[in-house]
Amino acid sequence: MPPFRTPIKHCRNCGASVAYRVPDDGDTRERAVCPACGTIHYENPLNVVGTVPYLGDKVLLCKRNIEPRWGKWTLPAGFMELGESTAEGAARETDEEAGADVQMEDLLTVISVPRVGQVHLYYRARLLSDRFDPGHETIEAKLFAEDEIPWEEIAFKTVRETLLCYFEDRRRGHFGVHNLVVS
Amino acid sequence: MPPFRTPIKHCRNCGASVAYRVPDDGDTRERAVCPACGTIHYENPLNVVGTVPYLGDKVLLCKRNIEPRWGKWTLPAGFMELGESTAEGAARETDEEAGADVQMEDLLTVISVPRVGQVHLYYRARLLSDRFDPGHETIEAKLFAEDEIPWEEIAFKTVRETLLCYFEDRRRGHFGVHNLVVS
Repeated sequence: MPPFRTPIKHCRNCGASVAYRVPDDGDTRERAVCPACGTIHYENPLNVVGTVPYLGDKVLLCKRNIEPRWGKWTLPAGFMELGESTAEGAARETDEEAGADVQMEDLLTVISVPRVGQVHLYYRARLLSDRFDPGHETIEAKLFAEDEIPWEEIAFKTVRETLLCYFEDRRRGHFGVHNLVVS
Repeated sequence: MPPFRTPIKHCRNCGASVAYRVPDDGDTRERAVCPACGTIHYENPLNVVGTVPYLGDKVLLCKRNIEPRWGKWTLPAGFMELGESTAEGAARETDEEAGADVQMEDLLTVISVPRVGQVHLYYRARLLSDRFDPGHETIEAKLFAEDEIPWEEIAFKTVRETLLCYFEDRRRGHFGVHNLVVS
């Protein structure tokens, strides 16, 4: 995934070519402004929502069948959609990517990734079955105990941090919400 | 603010008229797809980040000088920008809207608002001074004890919920992170 998005070239409202400049409305940042109809195009961070699905002392990881990080292991997660809550999005992604039947539990991590303009939010989710039905974005969905986690093959820093928080909280017998920043 | 954004009419890449349809890449939702260059336009929830600035037993509220909810009271908050963390955005908004000098503390609320496609994140922030220098979006910045809060004049549900969490946590002597959904 590239840092931020590709530049906006045309106005979403009228199709004219836009120019990046600071709008005249008191704003302090450059936006893509349409010289024809005046539309200001804002670009803001995206939320990625997912879960730590667990069964006993094991957590479920998915082997990615898509770029970036094809073949690496991740937690089920994806971009939050309009019309859903963070928890609903996390549950949806868990179903889509792992085909896992879960009961959603509490928020575990809120991790900003300023370099790519994202915030990742992970929930604990109790697995109700050890049968999975991964979607097309997943090669394999598999349970791992802590000492079996392929730490060198984890797809994203936010997944690694979330797994570390999960296992540490489990050891101390109390789960909290961890707010982190990764570069 | 309208529910979600106005529809996308033209492609941001080439300016051609787009059509809303489900892309052919395994997606399940309608997106604005460009028939000319193939660009798929995703629209996702926005994050609003802010603080509960406090000094002793009082919290700082700002009287809005902008629509929506002109003249109503709110906590300093605004849309998260690319390139910043949630806490950095919350600190920036506190400076812009209240001109308040604060020391950022922990995350307090993460509130989804699916109806408008937003997630609101509020941090506690300790005020280092009782002198404020509000920006053009604020009529007045003022400290309120709990029994002085103008509950009927609060601009947004997420602000109300965040204030309720703050005062309840303060009474029990322990602050947590509260994950809520409001309609």
